[in-house]
Amino acid sequence: MNFVSILMGSKSDYEIMKHCADTLEKFDVKYEIVISSAHRSPERTKNYIKSAEEKGAVAFIAAAGMAAHLAGAVAATTTKPVIGVPMKGGAMDGMDAMLSTVQMPAGMPVGTVALGRSGAVNAAYFAMQILAITDKELAIKLKEDRVVQSKKVEADSAEIEVIL
Amino acid sequence: MNFVSILMGSKSDYEIMKHCADTLEKFDVKYEIVISSAHRSPERTKNYIKSAEEKGAVAFIAAAGMAAHLAGAVAATTTKPVIGVPMKGGAMDGMDAMLSTVQMPAGMPVGTVALGRSGAVNAAYFAMQILAITDKELAIKLKEDRVVQSKKVEADSAEIEVIL
Amino acid sequence: MNFVSILMGSKSDYEIMKHCADTLEKFDVKYEIVISSAHRSPERTKNYIKSAEEKGAVAFIAAAGMAAHLAGAVAATTTKPVIGVPMKGGAMDGMDAMLSTVQMPAGMPVGTVALGRSGAVNAAYFAMQILAITDKELAIKLKEDRVVQSKKVEADSAEIEVIL
Amino acid sequence: MNFVSILMGSKSDYEIMKHCADTLEKFDVKYEIVISSAHRSPERTKNYIKSAEEKGAVAFIAAAGMAAHLAGAVAATTTKPVIGVPMKGGAMDGMDAMLSTVQMPAGMPVGTVALGRSGAVNAAYFAMQILAITDKELAIKLKEDRVVQSKKVEADSAEIEVIL
Amino acid sequence: MNFVSILMGSKSDYEIMKHCADTLEKFDVKYEIVISSAHRSPERTKNYIKSAEEKGAVAFIAAAGMAAHLAGAVAATTTKPVIGVPMKGGAMDGMDAMLSTVQMPAGMPVGTVALGRSGAVNAAYFAMQILAITDKELAIKLKEDRVVQSKKVEADSAEIEVIL
Amino acid sequence: MNFVSILMGSKSDYEIMKHCADTLEKFDVKYEIVISSAHRSPERTKNYIKSAEEKGAVAFIAAAGMAAHLAGAVAATTTKPVIGVPMKGGAMDGMDAMLSTVQMPAGMPVGTVALGRSGAVNAAYFAMQILAITDKELAIKLKEDRVVQSKKVEADSAEIEVIL
Amino acid sequence: MNFVSILMGSKSDYEIMKHCADTLEKFDVKYEIVISSAHRSPERTKNYIKSAEEKGAVAFIAAAGMAAHLAGAVAATTTKPVIGVPMKGGAMDGMDAMLSTVQMPAGMPVGTVALGRSGAVNAAYFAMQILAITDKELAIKLKEDRVVQSKKVEADSAEIEVIL
Amino acid sequence: MNFVSILMGSKSDYEIMKHCADTLEKFDVKYEIVISSAHRSPERTKNYIKSAEEKGAVAFIAAAGMAAHLAGAVAATTTKPVIGVPMKGGAMDGMDAMLSTVQMPAGMPVGTVALGRSGAVNAAYFAMQILAITDKELAIKLKEDRVVQSKKVEADSAEIEVIL
Repeated sequence: MNFVSILMGSKSDYEIMKHCADTLEKFDVKYEIVISSAHRSPERTKNYIKSAEEKGAVAFIAAAGMAAHLAGAVAATTTKPVIGVPMKGGAMDGMDAMLSTVQMPAGMPVGTVALGRSGAVNAAYFAMQILAITDKELAIKLKEDRVVQSKKVEADSAEIEVIL
Repeated sequence: MNFVSILMGSKSDYEIMKHCADTLEKFDVKYEIVISSAHRSPERTKNYIKSAEEKGAVAFIAAAGMAAHLAGAVAATTTKPVIGVPMKGGAMDGMDAMLSTVQMPAGMPVGTVALGRSGAVNAAYFAMQILAITDKELAIKLKEDRVVQSKKVEADSAEIEVIL
Repeated sequence: MNFVSILMGSKSDYEIMKHCADTLEKFDVKYEIVISSAHRSPERTKNYIKSAEEKGAVAFIAAAGMAAHLAGAVAATTTKPVIGVPMKGGAMDGMDAMLSTVQMPAGMPVGTVALGRSGAVNAAYFAMQILAITDKELAIKLKEDRVVQSKKVEADSAEIEVIL
Repeated sequence: MNFVSILMGSKSDYEIMKHCADTLEKFDVKYEIVISSAHRSPERTKNYIKSAEEKGAVAFIAAAGMAAHLAGAVAATTTKPVIGVPMKGGAMDGMDAMLSTVQMPAGMPVGTVALGRSGAVNAAYFAMQILAITDKELAIKLKEDRVVQSKKVEADSAEIEVIL
Repeated sequence: MNFVSILMGSKSDYEIMKHCADTLEKFDVKYEIVISSAHRSPERTKNYIKSAEEKGAVAFIAAAGMAAHLAGAVAATTTKPVIGVPMKGGAMDGMDAMLSTVQMPAGMPVGTVALGRSGAVNAAYFAMQILAITDKELAIKLKEDRVVQSKKVEADSAEIEVIL
Repeated sequence: MNFVSILMGSKSDYEIMKHCADTLEKFDVKYEIVISSAHRSPERTKNYIKSAEEKGAVAFIAAAGMAAHLAGAVAATTTKPVIGVPMKGGAMDGMDAMLSTVQMPAGMPVGTVALGRSGAVNAAYFAMQILAITDKELAIKLKEDRVVQSKKVEADSAEIEVIL
Repeated sequence: MNFVSILMGSKSDYEIMKHCADTLEKFDVKYEIVISSAHRSPERTKNYIKSAEEKGAVAFIAAAGMAAHLAGAVAATTTKPVIGVPMKGGAMDGMDAMLSTVQMPAGMPVGTVALGRSGAVNAAYFAMQILAITDKELAIKLKEDRVVQSKKVEADSAEIEVIL
Repeated sequence: MNFVSILMGSKSDYEIMKHCADTLEKFDVKYEIVISSAHRSPERTKNYIKSAEEKGAVAFIAAAGMAAHLAGAVAATTTKPVIGVPMKGGAMDGMDAMLSTVQMPAGMPVGTVALGRSGAVNAAYFAMQILAITDKELAIKLKEDRVVQSKKVEADSAEIEVIL
C-alpha cells in the first residue's frame, strides 16, 4: 500500500493543511494525517514515522510554524522524501518558519513549498509527482490537470479581457 | 535509463552546483547537467526538458539567482518532480531567489532547498531519495549514509569535547 | 494602430490592474487587457504577445504576484518596453514579487513600478510617456496633467492649512 | 537629435553607471552623462533636465543611493520616461534605494531596474527599447542581440555540460 | 515671531500629523501647517519654505510616506533644523519611508523620529526642545512635563500592580 | 520568600503579560507585577528592582516594545537572571523590540523569549525552571506538565487524524 | 556536582562557543562541552542530555545555526533552563537561527542570547547568574565583575575623551 | 559657554564618531566627547549629562550599536535636543540600532541620523543647525557650506561628464 503521510505540529495548522488532504483526495491518492509535535511529543512523532514507513508511506509532508522544527525532525528519522510546509504566525509571519524548514544540514534535505493554502496544495502535488513515477495512471491524471489549469486561465480571462 | 537532470541559469551557478553533481557521483547516480536560461534561451530550455524526460529523467534540479525563474519554467514544462536551488547574489542575497523559486502557483510545485553549497548537496540527496523509491540498492546506501553522518558528529566532538 | 497591452497572471490581479486600464481610458489611450499565466498557460502567453506586437502594441504592462515570473516572460518574448507591476500577497507581501520582477538578467530589462494601486496607475503613465514620444497631443495632455496634480495639492492644503 | 540622458547623484555612482554608458555606446546610441545631486545641486539638476529635454533627450536614466531622491526629482521635472537605477551602500544595501526610487506617487512614474551592474546595463537596454520605437535600425539590433544572448548561453553550457 | 513649520506630502498624512500640531498647541507653541509635495508641487514647496523662514520659522517638520522625499527636499532648501516623520503605507510599511528620510548625504541632515502617532508627537517635542534653548518658559514646561510623564506611569501601574 | 518579579514598560503590555502572571499562578508560584518605564520613570525602575531583590526576587521578567530598553535597564541594575519579553507594535512589528532586548553587551545578558502570548507564557516557564533548581516540588510539577502537553497533542490529533 | 552543559550543532560553531567556555573558566565554573546534532545524531543528543542531567547539569547552553533546531531539541528533553545561542551563516545571517531558536511553543522555553561572540559570552554569564542563586561566592564574583566592567568604560574613555 | 556633547557607548564607536568631532572642529564649534555606557556605567552616564548640561551643553549626540540604548538614556535624563547615531554591527547590521534609537516613547524624542560616517557627520551638522539659531556667524558658515557642497558636485561632474 503506497500512501502519503501528513504531519502537523499543532491543531491550528489543520485549517491550512486540510487543503493538502483535499487535493490528494481529489486525485484518489491514499493518505494519513496526524498531529504530532517535534517538541511536545517527540517520541510519538518518531514512532509514528517508523510505523508509517513500514505500512508503505512513500513521502512525508510536514507542516509547522514558529520554530518549525517538525519537517526537520521527520527528515532526521526517515530517508523517504520529506516535503516541508511552513506556517504563518511567527515574528516574520512565515518567513521564519520557511527558513527553519528549508535550511537543513547537507545530507538531510527537506523540499520546501510556499506558505499558506497554495503551499499546502503544492505539497500534495509534489508528493503525487513522486508517487506518479511508479503509478502511470496518476501520471496521466497530473498531465491532464495541466490542461485543466490552462483552460481555467482562458476562462478567467474571457470574463474581463479587452481585445482591440 | 533513470537519471537526474540538473539545469543552471548561468555559468556562474556552476561553482555551487558542482557540489550537486559531485554528490550524485559519490552515490553512482547518473545525471545530466546543462546551462539554459528561462529568459535568454527559453526554447532551448523547453526542448532540453522534453528530451531529458523522454530519455528517462526521473527528477529535475534547477538552480538560478536574481529573478530566479528557471525552476518555475521547468515545473511549467514537466510533471516530474522539480527541485529548486536558489542562488545568492541578488538584492536580498538569495532570499529573493528563494522566494522567486518557492512561491509557485497552486498545482505547479517546486520543492525548494537552501542557498549555497548545502542546498546544492541537498538537492542531490532529495533527488536520490526519490530515485530510491524504486532503487533498493540506493535506498540502502542512503540509510548507511545516515550512520556515516552520525559517526562524523561523534568524531568531530571527540576533537574538542570536555566531559567531567 | 498604437496601443498598450496589459497582461495579468491571475484573475485576482484585476481589482488592482483595473486602475491601470482606467488611467489609460482617462487619457483616451487604446489598450488590450488579458489574463495569461507564465506557468499555467505559457503557450497562450507567448502567442498573445506575438499577436499584440503585430497589431501595434508599443509597450507591455505585466502584473503578477508570488513568484511573479510574468513580466520576465513577456520581456523574454519581445524587445518592446515591458513595465512590471508587482502584486502583494506573497511571503514578503509584495517585496518578493517586486524583486522577482525587477531583477532581470542584463540585456532583458523590466521597468518596474510600485506595488498596489499607485503602481498600477503609474504603469499606465509610464506607458503613456513612451507613447507620447510620437504622439504630440498625448504629450501635451501629460504636461497639463502635471498642473492638475499641483493644483490638487493646493486644494488639499487649503482644507487644513494653518498659516500665521 | 535623439539621445539618452544619464544623471548620477554622486561621483561614486560612476563605477557602476559606466556600464550603462558603455552599453549605449556598443549600440551607437548617443547619450549625455552628468553628476548632479537632488539635494546638493537642485537648481543645477533642474536646469540640466530642462536643457537636455530641449536638445532632444528622449529618456532619462537617474542613478542614486541612500535616500535616492534623484530619479524622483527628475520625474517631477519632466514628462519624458525616467528610468531609475538604485545604488547599493545604504542601511539595507540597496533595497532602501530601490524603494526610494520605485515608490513614486501616482501620476509621476519612475521605471526602476535592478541594483548594480546588471541594473545599469538594463537601464541602457530599456532606454534603447524606447528609442527603437522610432528607430527601425536600433529595433533590428535589439532583436539580433537576443540571438547573441541565446548563443552565449549555449556556448557557456558547452564548456561544462554533461549529457548522457 | 518664532514658530514651527509643519509640511506634509499628502492629505492622508494629516490624520497622523494632527497629533503633532495638537502637541504644539498643548504647550502654546505657534506653528504653521501646510500640504505640499516634493514631486507634485516642488515650486510651491520651495516658495513656502523661503517665506516661512523669513517669517521666523525656527525648525521645520516634514512628513511623507512611500518614496518620502519631502523632508530631504526641505533640508536641501534651508539650513534650519529639519525633523522628518516617516509615514506608513509603502512596501515595507514605513521602514522604506524611514530610510528614505534618514539617509541624507553628509552635510544635509534630517533628524528623524519614529513612525506613526508617537513619531508625530515626538517631532513636536523635538522642535520644542530646540525652541526652548532661547525660551526659558518653554524649557520649564518641558521639564515639568517629565514629572507628569513619570506620575502617569505610577498611576497606570497602580491599576494593575501586584506587590507581595 | 522566593518570587518572580515582572516589569512592563507600559500599560498596553498588560494584555499580553497577564498570561505570564496567570501561568505562574497556575503553578502556585509567587510573583510581583508592576509598570515602570526605562525612560519615563528610570528612578522608580531602579528603586523597584533594588527593593524586589532585597525581598527575595529570584528572577526578573521585563516586557517592552518599540525601543524596548526596559529588560536591558533591569539587567544593568541586578545580577539576577533577567528574562526579556519583546512586544509587538514597532516598525518591524516586534522584530525591532526583540533585537533591542536580546543584543546586550557582553557581561550583561538578557535571556529573550518569543513575541506575544507564547513568549509571555514561556517567560513564566523559564523563571519557574530557574526556581525549580532549589524547589523540588516545582521541579516535579514541571515534569508532570510535559506529560500533560504531550497528551494534549494526542487529544488534538484524535479529533482530526486519518490513519489507514 | 553543579555544572553547565554546552552543546554545539557542528564543529564550525566551536570558534564562537570557545568564548562561552572561556568565560565559565574565568569564573572557575565547571562545564562540559560536546558536539551533537539535532538531525545527524538525535539519539546521541538525547542520551547526552539525560546523562548530563543525572551528573548535575544545572543549565544547558545550546548553539546552532541554519535551521537551528538544537536548543529546541534540548528544551524538549529536559526541564532544566536552556539557553540558546544562534549562529550566523544562514540566508539571513543569523536572524533565521535566532528566530528558529527563540520561537518555541508555549511551555517549552529557550532563553535566547545574541549572535556571535557577545552572545556566546552572555550565555555563560546567564548560566552563572542561575548557578549564583545557590552559590554565594559566585554571586559576589558577578557583582564584582560589574565594577570591573564599569571601570573598563572609564579607562576606554580616558584614552580619547575631550572635556572642556 | 555653548557646546555640543558627544557620548559613545563603546570604544569601537570612536572610529566613526571621530568624523563627528572633526566636522564640529572644521566649523570651530566647541564640543566634549566621552565614552559612557547605558548598561555598564549608567551612573557615570547620568552624572556626565547633568554636569555637561550645567556647563552649557546645547545639544547631545549619542552613538551606540547593538541594543543601542544610549541615546534613549540620554534623552531620558535631559530635555535638551538629543541626536542619535546608530552604529553598525548587530544582527541586522545597523537597522536594529537605528530602530532601537529612533523608536522612543511619545514625549521623549531622539532625532536620529543615518548609519556610518555620513550619519556621524550629519549629527554634527544637525547640532550646528541648532546652535546657529542663536549664533549668526555659524548660521552664515552653514549657508556658505551649501555653496561649497554644490560646487563640489559640479567639479566632480566635470571630471567625467559627457555633453553633446
